[in-house]
Amino acid sequence: MAGSIYGKLFRISTWGESHGKGIGVVVDGCPAGLSLCEEDIQKYLDRRKPGQSKFTTQRQEDDAVEILSGVFEGKTTGTPISMVVYNKTQRSQDYSEIAGYYRPGHADYTFDEKYGFRDYRGGGRSSGRETIGRVAAGAIAMKLLESLGIEVNAYAKSVGPVEIDYSRFDINERANNPFAMPDSEAAARVSEYASQKMKECDSVGGVIECTVDGMMTGIGEPVFDKLDASLAKAILSIGAVKGFEIGAGFEAAKMCGSEDNDSFYYDDGIKKRTNNAGGSLGGMSDGSRIVFRAAVKPTPSIAKPQMTVNKSDENIEVSIKGRHDPMIVPRAVVVVEAMTALTLIDLILENMTARLDRIIEFYR
Amino acid sequence: MAGSIYGKLFRISTWGESHGKGIGVVVDGCPAGLSLCEEDIQKYLDRRKPGQSKFTTQRQEDDAVEILSGVFEGKTTGTPISMVVYNKTQRSQDYSEIAGYYRPGHADYTFDEKYGFRDYRGGGRSSGRETIGRVAAGAIAMKLLESLGIEVNAYAKSVGPVEIDYSRFDINERANNPFAMPDSEAAARVSEYASQKMKECDSVGGVIECTVDGMMTGIGEPVFDKLDASLAKAILSIGAVKGFEIGAGFEAAKMCGSEDNDSFYYDDGIKKRTNNAGGSLGGMSDGSRIVFRAAVKPTPSIAKPQMTVNKSDENIEVSIKGRHDPMIVPRAVVVVEAMTALTLIDLILENMTARLDRIIEFYR
Amino acid sequence: MAGSIYGKLFRISTWGESHGKGIGVVVDGCPAGLSLCEEDIQKYLDRRKPGQSKFTTQRQEDDAVEILSGVFEGKTTGTPISMVVYNKTQRSQDYSEIAGYYRPGHADYTFDEKYGFRDYRGGGRSSGRETIGRVAAGAIAMKLLESLGIEVNAYAKSVGPVEIDYSRFDINERANNPFAMPDSEAAARVSEYASQKMKECDSVGGVIECTVDGMMTGIGEPVFDKLDASLAKAILSIGAVKGFEIGAGFEAAKMCGSEDNDSFYYDDGIKKRTNNAGGSLGGMSDGSRIVFRAAVKPTPSIAKPQMTVNKSDENIEVSIKGRHDPMIVPRAVVVVEAMTALTLIDLILENMTARLDRIIEFYR
Amino acid sequence: MAGSIYGKLFRISTWGESHGKGIGVVVDGCPAGLSLCEEDIQKYLDRRKPGQSKFTTQRQEDDAVEILSGVFEGKTTGTPISMVVYNKTQRSQDYSEIAGYYRPGHADYTFDEKYGFRDYRGGGRSSGRETIGRVAAGAIAMKLLESLGIEVNAYAKSVGPVEIDYSRFDINERANNPFAMPDSEAAARVSEYASQKMKECDSVGGVIECTVDGMMTGIGEPVFDKLDASLAKAILSIGAVKGFEIGAGFEAAKMCGSEDNDSFYYDDGIKKRTNNAGGSLGGMSDGSRIVFRAAVKPTPSIAKPQMTVNKSDENIEVSIKGRHDPMIVPRAVVVVEAMTALTLIDLILENMTARLDRIIEFYR
Repeated sequence: MAGSIYGKLFRISTWGESHGKGIGVVVDGCPAGLSLCEEDIQKYLDRRKPGQSKFTTQRQEDDAVEILSGVFEGKTTGTPISMVVYNKTQRSQDYSEIAGYYRPGHADYTFDEKYGFRDYRGGGRSSGRETIGRVAAGAIAMKLLESLGIEVNAYAKSVGPVEIDYSRFDINERANNPFAMPDSEAAARVSEYASQKMKECDSVGGVIECTVDGMMTGIGEPVFDKLDASLAKAILSIGAVKGFEIGAGFEAAKMCGSEDNDSFYYDDGIKKRTNNAGGSLGGMSDGSRIVFRAAVKPTPSIAKPQMTVNKSDENIEVSIKGRHDPMIVPRAVVVVEAMTALTLIDLILENMTARLDRIIEFYR
Repeated sequence: MAGSIYGKLFRISTWGESHGKGIGVVVDGCPAGLSLCEEDIQKYLDRRKPGQSKFTTQRQEDDAVEILSGVFEGKTTGTPISMVVYNKTQRSQDYSEIAGYYRPGHADYTFDEKYGFRDYRGGGRSSGRETIGRVAAGAIAMKLLESLGIEVNAYAKSVGPVEIDYSRFDINERANNPFAMPDSEAAARVSEYASQKMKECDSVGGVIECTVDGMMTGIGEPVFDKLDASLAKAILSIGAVKGFEIGAGFEAAKMCGSEDNDSFYYDDGIKKRTNNAGGSLGGMSDGSRIVFRAAVKPTPSIAKPQMTVNKSDENIEVSIKGRHDPMIVPRAVVVVEAMTALTLIDLILENMTARLDRIIEFYR
Repeated sequence: MAGSIYGKLFRISTWGESHGKGIGVVVDGCPAGLSLCEEDIQKYLDRRKPGQSKFTTQRQEDDAVEILSGVFEGKTTGTPISMVVYNKTQRSQDYSEIAGYYRPGHADYTFDEKYGFRDYRGGGRSSGRETIGRVAAGAIAMKLLESLGIEVNAYAKSVGPVEIDYSRFDINERANNPFAMPDSEAAARVSEYASQKMKECDSVGGVIECTVDGMMTGIGEPVFDKLDASLAKAILSIGAVKGFEIGAGFEAAKMCGSEDNDSFYYDDGIKKRTNNAGGSLGGMSDGSRIVFRAAVKPTPSIAKPQMTVNKSDENIEVSIKGRHDPMIVPRAVVVVEAMTALTLIDLILENMTARLDRIIEFYR
Repeated sequence: MAGSIYGKLFRISTWGESHGKGIGVVVDGCPAGLSLCEEDIQKYLDRRKPGQSKFTTQRQEDDAVEILSGVFEGKTTGTPISMVVYNKTQRSQDYSEIAGYYRPGHADYTFDEKYGFRDYRGGGRSSGRETIGRVAAGAIAMKLLESLGIEVNAYAKSVGPVEIDYSRFDINERANNPFAMPDSEAAARVSEYASQKMKECDSVGGVIECTVDGMMTGIGEPVFDKLDASLAKAILSIGAVKGFEIGAGFEAAKMCGSEDNDSFYYDDGIKKRTNNAGGSLGGMSDGSRIVFRAAVKPTPSIAKPQMTVNKSDENIEVSIKGRHDPMIVPRAVVVVEAMTALTLIDLILENMTARLDRIIEFYR
């Protein structure tokens, strides 16, 4: 599995299984001089912590991060930052049963096919706990972005059939409901809808939207490493995401050029009247808000009976036990922010090398 | 611009501007022993050639590829394969006007912001002609995939509001209409719709769908280099693409787990009853057909008047002249296939290193 | 510092400072199915452990490795393997003095210049303890090589003016003296020489030689990623190494072609009469023993007075206190083996993709 | 062969065989705004051109470079720069004989072993002509370095047993003799020595030394991507190089710490009294001159009879015909400069991301 390293200049290497000794990440390439303490990381990890309402898993995961290297007298030194969260409750007996069959919608089958066997305890490496490393590293990226005046915000745009209404949009509301929704009325309707589905032993999907404000222009590399292409990979690399769109996205496919094109105008700087591009033109940031969406599938672990195959190639009916989230969206919001921040800081660093005049000035 | 190299083991390096001397690509990491001649490449380039109907640009681009290295006595040698298409008609006078303002929906503004100036002739590096290098390299990847029994097919799923009807789906029909649509009736309706929009000096968008058959299981790396994440980056890196979804995609966000999960069953092998996953579980191929979609925006170059800003920061009205495609979809179909093939062969090569027992057997 | 990740397919990410909480490494891309336990790692770490004779530092570093992930039921799973060695004795008071000046021969000055400040405790990231991560990861690479029939052996070829005599060469002797020398008589003379230098509060350098037996042919990539070029980088990346040569090395520069060329002959396979090439032709392994050498400078930390500059830009005389190794060679031997193994396994994995016929056979 | 791409931010992709259609390179990641024309490249290529004296091959290689992309109105645009040198005289009949056996000291055997067959015409990809791509790309890197005040100079330090005398050192002398030696008396003695060896149908080796002046401090990444480790790989990747040493190099292995350590002193800046380190401390530039050496083996193609094996596994005697250089050193000097420049510019670009305060200032 040569796939647990992400980034080009700001590179992270994540590790850890659901029921192993711990989960962690090493950040290689973090600039020196950033103030950093464990609380800076912990506040992001707490946002993905379960057990905060009946709509997330009732497992107790009291994930406390520890910084093992790369910080000296409160500042990053430029050397690798290693962070670890030890797994405290390893109730792997819950999972012994699933060793014997392939859970629908999970990676059990493909892991076995690729590697010959798998760590079946709680999904092993394909568990949602894998994202702890991403969020811990993302917290550092977020702090770097903040120091450059950039703000990243993700939230639930929809859960099942319930969408937010932008006329009621309030980002602060996001922290007040269990669904990370910036619209309290929509959140109330989700609560009803989800409760019903939980009674049916079923789970629900949704859409996460993410905005980036304060971006400088010109970030992203033309051709293969476009800003939007890089974000797409980042977001699709999150377990349950099945789609990505930026700006008008799939709606743009139905538009005419005269509708989709964002007109430029001058008013104390060059600006755009609309933002169908979602902040990216030709793969480079255009100074507008970046806005994109991720389609998140429903939690595959459901108690409702499903058909599958066991290790003896028999067709069997199963009901997935255990304390699973009835939806992935709320806890994935902070993961979307993390992957976005990691992607942006990497492209921002790379962009420093684009122009000779600015390089000469840098070294003067 | 450190963004013109793509791939990890099968790596391509593309180059060239719309109105420079030529466009090309170097392929580093192509296995030795593949039969290869220029005709293998040319047939893919011909599929993106314009001027084949009134619905694509009337520019004559007689793009003939030349292989400069890496092939000896009809076979690839394992050394880099350099390919070039010389630009024949460089009517750059058509473009002198656009040097003075920013075309809406184009990368003119962001190129200037990133690099301080731009090659304004025909879009320079951000021209659609940049994809010639991708298609030429993709043709080699396609031939490698074929030798492994894998088939990649892209086609127009919709143009503007007109969608194909899967009950009439016929992949061979794709070559019979100017829209690369596998449904002749839908194509006829697109013809009407697009003619109307062309009269209005406007352009239209659409959706490209791509299928991959014959994939082995286990391809793709868990965590960051997932099969679907890698495809998403590949597809979003194509100029006008604004969205990507795999399997049920954005529809999955509205589903319950019991609907979205694909049940496994055994029938002379482990199979799935449905394919909402689109052939990827946990970021690895599951042996089902891979199926994904790309949202393509309308051509930004339109003759219809638009507002923008010129180099003197004045708000002006412009009408883009020149022979532009009224839609991008038909000619982008082969580019989607190319980027897909490039991504798959890279992951297929990487997967060879996943299991020690198979490595030992390889070297025995 | 984006420099703590090494490798392309078998990638390691090391972290940790001399006086931080610990030192560790994450291995991404280790094939699944390798039997692995902590003892496999520990035995290599023990070879770099100090305090085993009067010729290495008298610091007590009881480095015990812990595997945190990537192993399930005694076998590697294909997921990242995280290993940590916690620092037990953090006597950082020893080092408070050196915060104020630049030690000659150390990286104090360049760290300050690059990052604006440094973790001055015991050299921080540039401490010899940084190699713990390399050795732990190298132990896994060694085990993979063994399963392919490949054996790597490094040893001290010379210390100061004392060289081994190949007529007395015995690799097992290496473990019997404090200098990792495969010649007991030479070791005895080193003991005398080094004792004298220690009395003078000085330190000594030496040459490490490394051999690789059992290599298959064709490993290494022509052009930039040659076998010898890759080894050179690996070995020069070790702190105190100032030179690298393979086969005849610098002697080849004085030879004629008729002397330097290794004649081929056939005797139940194609063989070479000599090995001035050191096992690499055109950057690819030729089936002969690989043999190369590393020049290791003397320990820069010496008690003998030296001139340097302090933070107030004053010229001062200093005497480096603390328990330092009088020579680096003996403890670096296992680091050379580790870097060699890491480099070879990476190139061996990459080589699997060189020929289409073998790829097709692999996937059949 | 995934080995023809070099660099991380300033990346080059070389291609071409000795007797194919041409040789070339694509540079991805060159900053925008550098004045560049073909003459800037040609002057470096001319330095490696053969046929300038009886001591280099009498082949006529009138290598004229053409820039195909990436330059607009005399300046680099930030897009990939593609350069090509077409092969004019493809006298491949000279080489038909060598298809049948393995030339000692060449890569014929290893190419066959790795890829199953080889392009036997003139060495194919392993020909010295492969370096044309390096030199063309290196010329651009040199121009970038010059704009930062950095100067790179390589020269022959020795040929066979003849060494330069530093008391007569004159870099301008380098252009006045066929050996690129900065000492006319040594050159005269080489002339005699080499003439004798040519009469004996033999070839000679030598040592190239390279200096870098004007380097800023802090360039190079600690741990794996050290300045010296990166240079070692760059230099060993050149065909005939068998050794690399920086500063005191292998001599350091015989020194005591008190001799090898370079004392710091303050005199209008922090300086060093000696330079045994060769300008690199802890893998980062220390502001002193960088100085390193490469051991170059004798040309393996000699007319003097040698033993080898043919394709029928028979032991045969061969005499290599053709117009070969009696020594590699003089023409490799500019290749050493090129690889040095490529390596330095890459590390200089990467270093821009080391400190947060400077990043914030850059984007202000």
